Amino acid sequence: MKLASDVDLRKIAAMTSGFSGADLANLINEAALLTARENKDAVTMKELSEAIERVTAGLEKKQRVLQEEERRRVAYHEAAHALVAHVLPDADPVHKVSIIPRGFAALGYTMQRPEEDRFLLTRNELCSRIQVLLAGTLGEELVFEEISTGAHNDLERATELARSMVTDYGMSRLGRVTYRQTTSSGLLDGGAGTPREYSEKTAQMIDDEVKYLIDELIEGTRKVLFEKKVGMEALAKKLIEVEVVDAETLAKLL
Amino acid sequence: MKLASDVDLRKIAAMTSGFSGADLANLINEAALLTARENKDAVTMKELSEAIERVTAGLEKKQRVLQEEERRRVAYHEAAHALVAHVLPDADPVHKVSIIPRGFAALGYTMQRPEEDRFLLTRNELCSRIQVLLAGTLGEELVFEEISTGAHNDLERATELARSMVTDYGMSRLGRVTYRQTTSSGLLDGGAGTPREYSEKTAQMIDDEVKYLIDELIEGTRKVLFEKKVGMEALAKKLIEVEVVDAETLAKLL
Amino acid sequence: MKLASDVDLRKIAAMTSGFSGADLANLINEAALLTARENKDAVTMKELSEAIERVTAGLEKKQRVLQEEERRRVAYHEAAHALVAHVLPDADPVHKVSIIPRGFAALGYTMQRPEEDRFLLTRNELCSRIQVLLAGTLGEELVFEEISTGAHNDLERATELARSMVTDYGMSRLGRVTYRQTTSSGLLDGGAGTPREYSEKTAQMIDDEVKYLIDELIEGTRKVLFEKKVGMEALAKKLIEVEVVDAETLAKLL
Amino acid sequence: MKLASDVDLRKIAAMTSGFSGADLANLINEAALLTARENKDAVTMKELSEAIERVTAGLEKKQRVLQEEERRRVAYHEAAHALVAHVLPDADPVHKVSIIPRGFAALGYTMQRPEEDRFLLTRNELCSRIQVLLAGTLGEELVFEEISTGAHNDLERATELARSMVTDYGMSRLGRVTYRQTTSSGLLDGGAGTPREYSEKTAQMIDDEVKYLIDELIEGTRKVLFEKKVGMEALAKKLIEVEVVDAETLAKLL
Amino acid sequence: MKLASDVDLRKIAAMTSGFSGADLANLINEAALLTARENKDAVTMKELSEAIERVTAGLEKKQRVLQEEERRRVAYHEAAHALVAHVLPDADPVHKVSIIPRGFAALGYTMQRPEEDRFLLTRNELCSRIQVLLAGTLGEELVFEEISTGAHNDLERATELARSMVTDYGMSRLGRVTYRQTTSSGLLDGGAGTPREYSEKTAQMIDDEVKYLIDELIEGTRKVLFEKKVGMEALAKKLIEVEVVDAETLAKLL
Amino acid sequence: MKLASDVDLRKIAAMTSGFSGADLANLINEAALLTARENKDAVTMKELSEAIERVTAGLEKKQRVLQEEERRRVAYHEAAHALVAHVLPDADPVHKVSIIPRGFAALGYTMQRPEEDRFLLTRNELCSRIQVLLAGTLGEELVFEEISTGAHNDLERATELARSMVTDYGMSRLGRVTYRQTTSSGLLDGGAGTPREYSEKTAQMIDDEVKYLIDELIEGTRKVLFEKKVGMEALAKKLIEVEVVDAETLAKLL
Repeated sequence: MKLASDVDLRKIAAMTSGFSGADLANLINEAALLTARENKDAVTMKELSEAIERVTAGLEKKQRVLQEEERRRVAYHEAAHALVAHVLPDADPVHKVSIIPRGFAALGYTMQRPEEDRFLLTRNELCSRIQVLLAGTLGEELVFEEISTGAHNDLERATELARSMVTDYGMSRLGRVTYRQTTSSGLLDGGAGTPREYSEKTAQMIDDEVKYLIDELIEGTRKVLFEKKVGMEALAKKLIEVEVVDAETLAKLL
Repeated sequence: MKLASDVDLRKIAAMTSGFSGADLANLINEAALLTARENKDAVTMKELSEAIERVTAGLEKKQRVLQEEERRRVAYHEAAHALVAHVLPDADPVHKVSIIPRGFAALGYTMQRPEEDRFLLTRNELCSRIQVLLAGTLGEELVFEEISTGAHNDLERATELARSMVTDYGMSRLGRVTYRQTTSSGLLDGGAGTPREYSEKTAQMIDDEVKYLIDELIEGTRKVLFEKKVGMEALAKKLIEVEVVDAETLAKLL
Repeated sequence: MKLASDVDLRKIAAMTSGFSGADLANLINEAALLTARENKDAVTMKELSEAIERVTAGLEKKQRVLQEEERRRVAYHEAAHALVAHVLPDADPVHKVSIIPRGFAALGYTMQRPEEDRFLLTRNELCSRIQVLLAGTLGEELVFEEISTGAHNDLERATELARSMVTDYGMSRLGRVTYRQTTSSGLLDGGAGTPREYSEKTAQMIDDEVKYLIDELIEGTRKVLFEKKVGMEALAKKLIEVEVVDAETLAKLL
Repeated sequence: MKLASDVDLRKIAAMTSGFSGADLANLINEAALLTARENKDAVTMKELSEAIERVTAGLEKKQRVLQEEERRRVAYHEAAHALVAHVLPDADPVHKVSIIPRGFAALGYTMQRPEEDRFLLTRNELCSRIQVLLAGTLGEELVFEEISTGAHNDLERATELARSMVTDYGMSRLGRVTYRQTTSSGLLDGGAGTPREYSEKTAQMIDDEVKYLIDELIEGTRKVLFEKKVGMEALAKKLIEVEVVDAETLAKLL
Repeated sequence: MKLASDVDLRKIAAMTSGFSGADLANLINEAALLTARENKDAVTMKELSEAIERVTAGLEKKQRVLQEEERRRVAYHEAAHALVAHVLPDADPVHKVSIIPRGFAALGYTMQRPEEDRFLLTRNELCSRIQVLLAGTLGEELVFEEISTGAHNDLERATELARSMVTDYGMSRLGRVTYRQTTSSGLLDGGAGTPREYSEKTAQMIDDEVKYLIDELIEGTRKVLFEKKVGMEALAKKLIEVEVVDAETLAKLL
Repeated sequence: MKLASDVDLRKIAAMTSGFSGADLANLINEAALLTARENKDAVTMKELSEAIERVTAGLEKKQRVLQEEERRRVAYHEAAHALVAHVLPDADPVHKVSIIPRGFAALGYTMQRPEEDRFLLTRNELCSRIQVLLAGTLGEELVFEEISTGAHNDLERATELARSMVTDYGMSRLGRVTYRQTTSSGLLDGGAGTPREYSEKTAQMIDDEVKYLIDELIEGTRKVLFEKKVGMEALAKKLIEVEVVDAETLAKLL
């Protein structure tokens, strides 16, 4: 995939912050296909933007028919996300909740303030983000007793954030040392990655710390959901009924 | 292998969900050969679809002659798959069972509802899938006392599902943390994979958990097969006789 | 090495089943040389077939002169293979034994039913194959007291089979879990391999299990050779005399 | 990225000393974009210089609007850097402190004597550099009680310096032995890197030593900040007011 | 380096058996240079043969002037090789000993029967080879009390042989299991190597076994050298005097 | 970087013996730049020679102005190198000492007999080389109490020599076994390196042995420097005064 000269990688990076590896792979595919369809030699900003839009928001495939049970589950999952984002003081406010399936992976989504509006995040704000991510699966668990594969992307992003707190931001009991998974050693080798430089014992301490952090935050999130279960159910039912709920309605319901 | 612009990778991904690495390698070979035979420059959706069909279902090679003993073994193997899929409440219903050899690897198959019809799978549904996969080899064991190499693909897929439950879906005692084997760190390195980021101790806990999960499910599956052995034998004998059994006949036999 | 469109990789795979990595490297060299000699652009089925023939059977280099002592050793080595293959009920029958040196590596060979005739192998059949492979070096040991480098390829293939029983076929005390050395994660990365995903402790258990399996089978094979030493010696002497022994003569001698 | 013949890599290396891997990746992107915009075939010294300028100093994006709370945090962060650089005898003198956001990552900066003016650094000088780097996050902690993601780059560079003291300069309890993460073994392999050559136990000792060094230096830095808190607050308030403070004003305030 | 169609890789392999990795790298360089000098597109058998000759035997650089002390050391080193090769019953007979420096690395050599004349090597023969290799450095030690860097290539080849005995030929206490450092898994991946598949514990057992084997053989070799020290000294002095000693003279001296 | 046919890699290797990986990277850059400036297609011996000269000796940049303190430190550093080289019986004699900065990295140098004049090095000679390398930093320590980053290259080369003594030359308590970091397995894979083949326990023993060797040699070197401190100071002062000291003056001063 050759990039056209108008591509501003900084903008792309900003627009794709928070993307998982799979999301990026998806994005690259989309952009390549769009470029090929327009018979262009190089990917321009236009294709990249459209590809990002498709990947992030997905194509509003009304024709996709979820099983009734799946739809209920999605509603409770999103309601739990929205509830926790609404309740936690350090979480970004919710703009919209939807259970209209979009794109290949997203069966629903809760839209908060875009992440690129912020330049610094405090420890509490990071913790709140993790709690909002964990809320979906914990909500499912509270209502349906068993969880589903729908939690995968949330758990992955929550784990990544927790891992960054430990290895990049010095926000854990491992102290103010950073631990890089890969290193690029400079101009000469083109920045090619080398294997992790820290020891197995350190790797183990990082794993333990990440798990400890997530477990702590699950505890707190469960408490919130349990206390506000009525609100969550009201929101879930509303979602099943009207599919999309905006900030105003949300505030009334909770 | 250059891809034509009409190739929709999302569709391909949906059509090949559940494929093992070997299946994908096979698929690529098939598609490349088909494209070469038609003197095309790039693989189009047509070749990919045909290749998928060939790999999944295989070519109905009537001429392939199994040894009589092998054929009996295949019949019991498929009968066990079908029986467990029929009995477990969370397993997808069986449409057809066949012992007509198809393609290079498949000596028989049990057809259930296509996986792409579902968007979410609950923990119980995943467990049922694993049990259906394990049933083939456990059926062989019950009847012939020793197992065969025919179980390889089933065991591989069962292990993959169990591993995903542990590392991707937060469905084990390791908690709601995800563990990625490889990571792609973003646009800049083209998504190239890096070695696993978790520690050896964590790798060991994952292995133990996967083994524990499989062992538990084997227990349950063995019980089902033992209790319904008469039904399994009836189905196996029917298969040896008529080669293909549909849902209706299956229900009658069991 | 570009492949011509008439190349059927399935057929190639079938014809090279049981090849070691070194055999395949040899095969690729041979095919490339043959293609170059015929000034072709791509390797066709013809060159591949001839290369396979050369590699498997080797070129009957009558001119290669083995030392007398080496020739005796080869005769006992092949006689031991043939004897064990003849005696074990689950081993494939022997068609021919030869000590005419063929190709670069093979100083002699024992020909059994081609492996591609079978689609399923039971645990006992796999064990018998390993025992036939081990027999050569154990026969040398019984007669000459020390073993030679001639056992290398046999030991490699025996180890591979034993390892497959443990990691692929669920036929060991490690249970019905598969352990993949490398994984290809799908279409997007072209199937590139990643490092093994299991833990060091699991790697150790696999090593122990493989060694245990081989040691057990050595025990049994030694017993067979010891009991039938007279037959082995008769066959070895016949081989030294006439170089090639067919199934009929073999049956008479044993 | 092809380099023009006028590129003096030694100069580039001097101008980018202290760059992290991410900085270099950024630099390469910038240079590539600039070259593409001017339709040149190869990157010349001109583009590289401009790219370095952009990456180091950033583009003075007045339009970027930080949240008020973020701005306060940045002010205290930079004030702490400047204070510690001012106070420690072995630290380079401060020329300017600014909280005008520059470029993509830098929200503020403290300018000291350029690193390329020095050819040798003593152990004390290295320790002082680490302390100046750590000061930012410790200042945030002192005032706001929780730290932010703004510390990431500082912590990464501090960790790198500490690691170099241990593995490259023989300045730790591990003695006068060097420990290379990667090695290039000569002309023949083009200098390709190989995995680390030291043992896991050594890796662990390195990790422990780096952590010990950082912890020691945090202790000292905290003491400085605590004792001079009044000065730091005065400087921070001045920064919030006028955005840029020069060496003279700084000296007066502290 | 493109290979001409007349290149017979089997022959090359036979001619370079026993080459170390560095020797092969040297060989490739030589062949590439020769090909370039003759303005050919591809390396033919002619260049390869000449390159092998150069690398193995070296260019008889009479002009290279060794220090007197170095020359004495080389003489004792080669005398020790020759003595042990002469004395051990399973070692190949010595044809010529020389201390005329040849090529870049070889300062002297002891010529035995070419290795490609043998197809099988017994355990005793391998042990004898290792003892001949070890003799050079042990002879130096006996006479000069400290050893030199001249032993490097001998030690490397001795270690490789010992390692092969353990990992390839089943000739150690680790039993009849093979342990491959790298594996090539087949046609599809072009035979690319994967990391070692055995566990750390096994790697440790292999290391211990290799060391045990070498230590045992050093013991025996030291005894031979000690008992025949007079002969070794006579041969060394003869070498210093006439530079080259043939089989006949050697037999007389010992 | 394409090599012209007149390039004699053996000569290059001889001229760059003792180069670190970074030196070689530097060399390649220099050669590439020189070739580009002369608009040549391939690097000839001329450019390589000039590049080696530049890298080894550096460009005598008179304009580079070291801080006074740095200059004093360099003088004592070089004086210590020269002193130890002068005193140790097995070290090569000193020809010249200089503190005129040359090139990018070398702030001073002590010139001994070129390494390519020797073909064999004894254990004592290697130990003396390591001691000369260690002397620089130990001299700094003796005079200034703390060491500087100037020791990096010396420590790296000392560590490499010590490591070679352990892993390549059989000169440590690990015995006459070689331990290769990477292996190239032959013609077929083009000599590509594979990961280290020895176990973690062995890696640990190697690390311990290298450290032990360096620690022992530091002890001895410290004693020499302490006893001859007056001579070292005289030489250092002379160097500060006249910048370059030849062998004769050196002998007088010491």
